[in-house]
Amino acid sequence: MAHAPKNVLFIMCDQLRFDYLGCAGHARLETPNIDALAARGVRFDRAYVQSPVCGPSRMSYYTGRYMRSHGANWNNFPLRVGEPTLGDHLKKLGVRTVLVGKTHMTADDEGMARLGMDRDSVIGVQTAECGFEPYERDDGLHPSRPGAKRPAYDRYLEQQGFEAPNPWEDLANSGADADGEKQNGWLLAHADKPALIPDEHSETPYMTRRAMDFIREAKDDGRPWCLHLSYIKPHWPYIAPAPYHAMYSESDVQPAIRSDGERQNPHPVYGAFMDMRVSRNFSREDIRHRVIPTYMGLIKQIDDQLGHLFRFLDEEGLTDKTMIVFTSDHGDYLGDHWLGEKDLFHEVSVKVPMIVVDPSPEADATRGTVSSALVEGIDLAPTFIEYFGGTVPRHIIEGRSLAPLLRGAPALDGRKFVVSEYDYSMLDVRRTLGRKADECRLFMIFDGRFKYIHAPGFRPMLFDLSTDPNEYRDLGDDPDFEAERTRLKEWLLGWALTDHSRITMPDARIEGYGPGPQLKNGFVIGYWDEDEVAKARKDYGLD
Amino acid sequence: MAHAPKNVLFIMCDQLRFDYLGCAGHARLETPNIDALAARGVRFDRAYVQSPVCGPSRMSYYTGRYMRSHGANWNNFPLRVGEPTLGDHLKKLGVRTVLVGKTHMTADDEGMARLGMDRDSVIGVQTAECGFEPYERDDGLHPSRPGAKRPAYDRYLEQQGFEAPNPWEDLANSGADADGEKQNGWLLAHADKPALIPDEHSETPYMTRRAMDFIREAKDDGRPWCLHLSYIKPHWPYIAPAPYHAMYSESDVQPAIRSDGERQNPHPVYGAFMDMRVSRNFSREDIRHRVIPTYMGLIKQIDDQLGHLFRFLDEEGLTDKTMIVFTSDHGDYLGDHWLGEKDLFHEVSVKVPMIVVDPSPEADATRGTVSSALVEGIDLAPTFIEYFGGTVPRHIIEGRSLAPLLRGAPALDGRKFVVSEYDYSMLDVRRTLGRKADECRLFMIFDGRFKYIHAPGFRPMLFDLSTDPNEYRDLGDDPDFEAERTRLKEWLLGWALTDHSRITMPDARIEGYGPGPQLKNGFVIGYWDEDEVAKARKDYGLD
Repeated sequence: MAHAPKNVLFIMCDQLRFDYLGCAGHARLETPNIDALAARGVRFDRAYVQSPVCGPSRMSYYTGRYMRSHGANWNNFPLRVGEPTLGDHLKKLGVRTVLVGKTHMTADDEGMARLGMDRDSVIGVQTAECGFEPYERDDGLHPSRPGAKRPAYDRYLEQQGFEAPNPWEDLANSGADADGEKQNGWLLAHADKPALIPDEHSETPYMTRRAMDFIREAKDDGRPWCLHLSYIKPHWPYIAPAPYHAMYSESDVQPAIRSDGERQNPHPVYGAFMDMRVSRNFSREDIRHRVIPTYMGLIKQIDDQLGHLFRFLDEEGLTDKTMIVFTSDHGDYLGDHWLGEKDLFHEVSVKVPMIVVDPSPEADATRGTVSSALVEGIDLAPTFIEYFGGTVPRHIIEGRSLAPLLRGAPALDGRKFVVSEYDYSMLDVRRTLGRKADECRLFMIFDGRFKYIHAPGFRPMLFDLSTDPNEYRDLGDDPDFEAERTRLKEWLLGWALTDHSRITMPDARIEGYGPGPQLKNGFVIGYWDEDEVAKARKDYGLD
Repeated sequence: MAHAPKNVLFIMCDQLRFDYLGCAGHARLETPNIDALAARGVRFDRAYVQSPVCGPSRMSYYTGRYMRSHGANWNNFPLRVGEPTLGDHLKKLGVRTVLVGKTHMTADDEGMARLGMDRDSVIGVQTAECGFEPYERDDGLHPSRPGAKRPAYDRYLEQQGFEAPNPWEDLANSGADADGEKQNGWLLAHADKPALIPDEHSETPYMTRRAMDFIREAKDDGRPWCLHLSYIKPHWPYIAPAPYHAMYSESDVQPAIRSDGERQNPHPVYGAFMDMRVSRNFSREDIRHRVIPTYMGLIKQIDDQLGHLFRFLDEEGLTDKTMIVFTSDHGDYLGDHWLGEKDLFHEVSVKVPMIVVDPSPEADATRGTVSSALVEGIDLAPTFIEYFGGTVPRHIIEGRSLAPLLRGAPALDGRKFVVSEYDYSMLDVRRTLGRKADECRLFMIFDGRFKYIHAPGFRPMLFDLSTDPNEYRDLGDDPDFEAERTRLKEWLLGWALTDHSRITMPDARIEGYGPGPQLKNGFVIGYWDEDEVAKARKDYGLD
């Protein structure tokens, strides 16, 4: 049987910075396969996620909606039952939406029970999996916890002869020191150790092969598919199998993007984040030098695996019929701005790689180009819907299709800014800042030059990326920038007041209504007498 | 069997103005039974609905959430599946939530099908009925339409010998002229005719008896209940059975609250509404004189019926164990401000009667008082939850329990304003104003003195009810009031940015999380080495 006529391969890395690719200009890291992908499509160098942390970023990607709309504000916050997903939209078009890897989806158990849903039905499983058919669901982090579901990857390792109480942790994510002693891969000190399993059996190659398994099986099924291949790496534990653990070294580590000025009188929220353990640790050069080479090695391993995958697509005759997207759920400070992890809104955290290869002839004109149009992660869902021939339901989906950009437009018509949000209630900074659970919100609005961060309870932050591309100078309380802050806050109000819950009534049905249909339905509202009705019926063409 | 230990009787009229009650000071209309109810409880004279039109106002009442949260922006916009309702919250407390009359709920057929729900199951029925057990569902307007479900009231009339192709319309809502000829009750000209069925069989008495039927049957069931008795009157068709059609006359009609100044250079949205048919008609004194006496008669009839109902509750021994609420879903301009119908935000449209009788001893101190605390319709749901002994889920419900006010507090702590919203996309004014379907929003924020109306695409409106209680002077572009507009717009931004979708994660679970639980779960994030972990485990009390 032949492969279906069109497909989408939606590849996501976790915690991959936008600037850690060859084609993005990294001075030392070479990613020839990802670069080759970019050469076949468009590389977007101003793509922003809708929350710079795994859970809500992904829920936004998978719904095409902002965090304030989907409500899964942080990791493991269940996505509310009834929230329409990409899988729901593609199902209407006869397309399968399939998962290999991580989503960070937590099922709304209470909501599903409230609606009496059968958890074992096809719909029940897909609802619990955020709209995906879970070919292989693996969120990538598997510490030993009583009752926690073990991943299939554990059993795979055992079948390969790698046995341990917790194979994922004890072997795949532990390193061996010079004496062969097992070292905990969670700890930054051990980032330079080779993992205790060989490359071939580590997570990235394993998941890549699972994707290929699905693609082969899909041939027999015959339906078009959207496959989400979602790697955990280069997200911590920062540990890589040989040779990747040693492929890069201290001399390949790029200087941190940080200034002493940032630590002088910082915004209170920023200051609280700088005081976190991971920030203080990544502010140490020795720790950066220990970890970043491994971070680079993990990306190199991904690039090698994507080489295999793209060759496989060629062999299967799929390259000309498969849209390929390569992106990330957020970045990684790695000590820049005196921070670790992600969460806040500097470029290295909130901006992500975004490569889109559309094999259609309409996209030929832009192959190999770089677009600086402002793009949001939520733009992918409508892009996929349109790619499969659907109409984007604009009363549900808040992102916008990238098709015009793929066809050569310089920007999306009318897009003046991008928005990202954060909820810090689950972090200890909530306590240090003395905030209640519902008082921990941050909102970024970026117009391509000015990045305004609204922080309820505090003054705003403001950066001018034109004069200060490194985002060292917070202009949030600088009187000279009052006008910019006012403008951006006004735009934030407009965004905040835009409807996002009216998901059951399409615009077209609203536009079709009026006094004529109302009268036709027998609702005679506000008419004085029979003559007035008769005249109206005539005017509305009802007789 | 005895009646359950506590109940709520949640009475709602449709389109009843706050000032059309004896206890609210109407110069001519006497409502002794409603007045007596107020004398037993608290009458709130600053209660505001969350959208001044049936559908979204009710969806807000029945969810305890703002319109921007529930998304059922206008009449017949389905309430999205998964949106938690009062019925869901009370079910957890073992309380039945039962309907007699109107809700204006439209089921989210598509959403329920998407989730594979069985429409005939108990959950399916209740979800389709907005969380209510539909003892008798009747939305009160039944023009003849192919395929439209006929109400049980039609069959009741037929059983009483009142037969017609459409008994509701042809008999209950048609009048007889002097020659006995049937006159269409939809038409304002016929408001003064007696309806073609007697008082006893008209809608208000019928629905009152159905409520009593339920209450009797509930005795055998034994569970506590929240009964929503939801009358269609005095909403149009403005037609009443004898003697109510003639109980009031032109001389009882109060002067319209309107000034010539309002028609001079009005705000564009207000001006568009003034041009609507129903507004132009109600701007005619002769039409007001024809309709308003009947409007008053319908309210008088409701008051008489509530007299029967309250006596029945006494006879059943329920008075001391039943919280009683009397309110409305919005008002009726009746020509005030040169407008008809509702929709906009003048007091006579957005403010509603609100009487709450809590039989508990804790509420004894406030019996017979009037509270000027700012109250929202969405405050009722949490009030009921607390009345039945539950804890209000503050991550879901946006209203606040009125219990402190019933116990004597002068205001709800920290409540600075009330909010109401409107979506005019379904009205013809959308076309006359040249707006798209998603550009038709209005937002009212009222702090008890200043009423600010934010109208995207237009300048705001602003009224100072302290110096201009009739709301004749729109200060929306008056330079002297820039500071007030700025302040209220800032509050509107705060309201707009408040989380309202995070409905799956209670605050308490967030507050319980932190670096200790994270480490205990095996997530070792940002630690350099074993010593650092060991110290942290000690600090967090994990060893």
